[in-house]
Amino acid sequence: MRKSIATVSVSGTLTEKLAAIAAAGFDGVELFENDLLTCPLPPEEVRLRAADLGLSIELYQPFRDFEAMPSPDLRRAERKFRVMERLGADTLLVCSNVSPQAVDDDELAASQLRLLAERAAEHGIRIAYEALAWGRHVNEYLHAWRIVRLADHPNLGTCLDSFHILSRGSDPIGIEAIPGEKIFFLQLADAPLLAMDVLQWSRHYRCFPGQGTFDLAGLVGHALKAGYEGPLSLEVFNDHFRQADAGRTSHDGMRSLIALEQALRGADHPAEPTGFAFAELAGPVGGVLTALGFTRTGAHPDEPVELWEQGEARLLVDTTAADPSLLAVGLETPDQAAATEHAASLLSPTMEAPDGTRHSFPDAAWRDGFAPSLPAPGDITHIDHVALTQPWHHFDGATLFYRTVLGLRPQESLELPDPYGLLRSKAMSSADGRVRVVLNLAQVGAESMPLQHVALATDDLLATACRLRAEHPELLLPIPCNYYDDLDADPSLRELGVLHDRDEHGEFLHLYTVTVGRVFFEIVQRIGGYRGYGAVNAPVRLAVQHLRWANDLAARHQGASA
Amino acid sequence: MRKSIATVSVSGTLTEKLAAIAAAGFDGVELFENDLLTCPLPPEEVRLRAADLGLSIELYQPFRDFEAMPSPDLRRAERKFRVMERLGADTLLVCSNVSPQAVDDDELAASQLRLLAERAAEHGIRIAYEALAWGRHVNEYLHAWRIVRLADHPNLGTCLDSFHILSRGSDPIGIEAIPGEKIFFLQLADAPLLAMDVLQWSRHYRCFPGQGTFDLAGLVGHALKAGYEGPLSLEVFNDHFRQADAGRTSHDGMRSLIALEQALRGADHPAEPTGFAFAELAGPVGGVLTALGFTRTGAHPDEPVELWEQGEARLLVDTTAADPSLLAVGLETPDQAAATEHAASLLSPTMEAPDGTRHSFPDAAWRDGFAPSLPAPGDITHIDHVALTQPWHHFDGATLFYRTVLGLRPQESLELPDPYGLLRSKAMSSADGRVRVVLNLAQVGAESMPLQHVALATDDLLATACRLRAEHPELLLPIPCNYYDDLDADPSLRELGVLHDRDEHGEFLHLYTVTVGRVFFEIVQRIGGYRGYGAVNAPVRLAVQHLRWANDLAARHQGASA
Repeated sequence: MRKSIATVSVSGTLTEKLAAIAAAGFDGVELFENDLLTCPLPPEEVRLRAADLGLSIELYQPFRDFEAMPSPDLRRAERKFRVMERLGADTLLVCSNVSPQAVDDDELAASQLRLLAERAAEHGIRIAYEALAWGRHVNEYLHAWRIVRLADHPNLGTCLDSFHILSRGSDPIGIEAIPGEKIFFLQLADAPLLAMDVLQWSRHYRCFPGQGTFDLAGLVGHALKAGYEGPLSLEVFNDHFRQADAGRTSHDGMRSLIALEQALRGADHPAEPTGFAFAELAGPVGGVLTALGFTRTGAHPDEPVELWEQGEARLLVDTTAADPSLLAVGLETPDQAAATEHAASLLSPTMEAPDGTRHSFPDAAWRDGFAPSLPAPGDITHIDHVALTQPWHHFDGATLFYRTVLGLRPQESLELPDPYGLLRSKAMSSADGRVRVVLNLAQVGAESMPLQHVALATDDLLATACRLRAEHPELLLPIPCNYYDDLDADPSLRELGVLHDRDEHGEFLHLYTVTVGRVFFEIVQRIGGYRGYGAVNAPVRLAVQHLRWANDLAARHQGASA
Repeated sequence: MRKSIATVSVSGTLTEKLAAIAAAGFDGVELFENDLLTCPLPPEEVRLRAADLGLSIELYQPFRDFEAMPSPDLRRAERKFRVMERLGADTLLVCSNVSPQAVDDDELAASQLRLLAERAAEHGIRIAYEALAWGRHVNEYLHAWRIVRLADHPNLGTCLDSFHILSRGSDPIGIEAIPGEKIFFLQLADAPLLAMDVLQWSRHYRCFPGQGTFDLAGLVGHALKAGYEGPLSLEVFNDHFRQADAGRTSHDGMRSLIALEQALRGADHPAEPTGFAFAELAGPVGGVLTALGFTRTGAHPDEPVELWEQGEARLLVDTTAADPSLLAVGLETPDQAAATEHAASLLSPTMEAPDGTRHSFPDAAWRDGFAPSLPAPGDITHIDHVALTQPWHHFDGATLFYRTVLGLRPQESLELPDPYGLLRSKAMSSADGRVRVVLNLAQVGAESMPLQHVALATDDLLATACRLRAEHPELLLPIPCNYYDDLDADPSLRELGVLHDRDEHGEFLHLYTVTVGRVFFEIVQRIGGYRGYGAVNAPVRLAVQHLRWANDLAARHQGASA
């Protein structure tokens, strides 16, 4: 299907927007009036610019507060028609009236829209009438369609907007009652479920399909069944998107539509990841890994990369970097070729998350290349999860990446108090829970601490903690005594610096190492069917890490000035 | 009255919070449990640290989900009591139960709270029971009081929280039905009116008294009438406050309480500003001022400051700075001494806004010091308003400053689309509209453009525009033609580059100059009783300014690298 996006969905001036949208591979745009009014180029040049970029102008919008008025303002409409002719745009979006002067009279609305359509027809223009969720009298899509049918003019049809339909809880199945050729336009936006005024929700929190909780594939399916043949067009009002890089946002938008088309075809992820093949670190982390019980079992024949192993936990280490960080994640899959091809189909051949972490589906024999020896036996059994800090404005993009490209499912979404702000955190996992990724949102400002971590699983955390405390006490992140004074748990946790959580399925024991470079390690034990990540204890960790981070910075500054 | 603030209201680690709170002059704190749990100091040292800073620990909080349970968890309560003894805190906040297991049974709730109070009494501790607005069965403050009365124990009282009362629309007059000695604690938070889930509203959008729309003085008046003698304590959950500078936030909190006390005494601003005495600019702006029709009428005898005048518009210019900016605003007042003293009483002797702009109430003869000549006649009659960009996280602080220190009233609050994000804007003015200030919120990120501007009034904008276009066309900000194609107004506006707006009271004509340094000028004509600021046209201005700003930056970079 043709793919379009409203210019309001991305950041920048109109020319910047068009360039980014075209680069992402869209076929057309909805031109938002404000973007034209603030643009120094006349409509003819905007038309040429768009055409040069391979973009058609699918819709001009919005035209507000026209119908069901005591006296409709046709002069204003004529001004829009003239601009649209110069733009080469043939469809005008008319939103249902929100004016206090609007009359609750479908006959009047229909007759005035008919008049508008007649005038539009003289310019070769079509009118797409849409029910805003907060329209004064018309706020249901089937109500808008009733008025369109009543008006009965070939140049008048309806525009459907997934947000306006789904935010009100309307059942989209009614779309099938509308003849496809009378659905002039289909606008798509997803949104997180928020209990708030629908106007504010719409203006600030819309997102691309797959980033929220609406069933977009279901809605589009009804429109296709009705015979809709127009473009799939994204229309998103989002405070982050307004500020984020336009290229990346456009790219995310295109990915969301491709994933939507795949969902429409019933094509799930063809080869969902079944486990962590490895996590790849950079920098001098050998000392920490040895302390944690890992063995250096092999080395890449051609590259400066070592393999470290313990149980089924495998870590690659690129030894050339100076500062430790987490570079990449290798994932196991039943079908490497299908998984890799699927990622490419979603515009992500390199599988790089917004924070720069690369992902791959290595072939089954990847480990052999390192000519590995057997690792020494240890407590660690496998990688439980990795946690990555995503850049400001690209949290929704990260969700989309892990959901579509890697086939993970969103789990709990939390806000955790950090001493210097709330930390937004979202867990995603494979269906069987073997691959878990926690996405954290980096904060803005000087106190930003963009940490990454690898959580390693053990079957006996107290034993692991005992050993570490005896052999490498300097490696353990100290936990404040006050935490234990408040805790109703085994007193040995205090001595060992182990944290505790429980949910309705089981219990969780965990500890953290200190940070090296940007990276730290967590060791976790899931008891029973515990499903979480110990988020209740994250504020304790964050406070201690901030203190140490600040001390390190101060020491480095002192070192630099000494 | 004693003044207190919850540690959750400000940013940082517990020790940073205590230091900032003490520096702002508070008498005590509500210690938030999470701040203690994440703190490396044991309770005894926290107690000493607070005492050294002159702070008492007025309340320990929150203790959740205790009452009306099938079996109340007294062991958990005993842990809290032990910590409180070590802290030297004698009042524990118990919030009404939100657990799905809670039973809707006031008798049960009362008997369990009585049991809790008995145990607390053994530790010399009092229980303050509070109705959360989203409590499962108890969510009205008078309901909480009924349960407290039913329990009838000297160590059990109620805690009132202005947010929980006013967010539900409850009438605070019922507070007078509670004996003062049974009101164990009074928590104060204001909030903007938002149509959203009350829990989200509470957790993210609370603010200090005077920053929102609640009638805090009214509520506190009822508590005082009831005989409440405890502290006024601020408890604010706010995403910005969590990230903002703790010293500035604490200072704002103290200012809000002082203003609240003044309101309780019925003490309005004693000498509200009646006009702009002057605006003070820095840098080489003489050329622009001359072009705008200003005359250099005088010079300061001792300082490098010039006086420029036109009509009643007076501008001081500090000629030593290299980059033009707006430094200060002088305000006329019927009583200079009272106005200055009032500012000092609100902790603002220098009257500096969060963006650094200084304000003053110069004495009536200030102009004489410049030995001024008569200005040439011109179109400009006076300063209409100044617009200032406030730093991220300190928008609420700016509102409080202008509202309390300078006695201005909040007017419209808007969000305007800028190419790179939404611009938050709030207008404030004196009762008679002679002093108007527009506060804009600076955006985060690379595209940030922290502009300031002075809007000058004229009685005939078209004449002024004509003259400027003929004599200094380079000075006028060019307006895109597309703006005029969409405008239903006098065609001469297009030729002259004048913008237009109307409201129900009248019309507005205005134009902008280009930016010099951080500053630009606006010339405005209010026709009829127009009350706004042409905000509908701000997106056009912002888009053009961004384009020029980016070009300037590029040219400067080129210059630097050449």
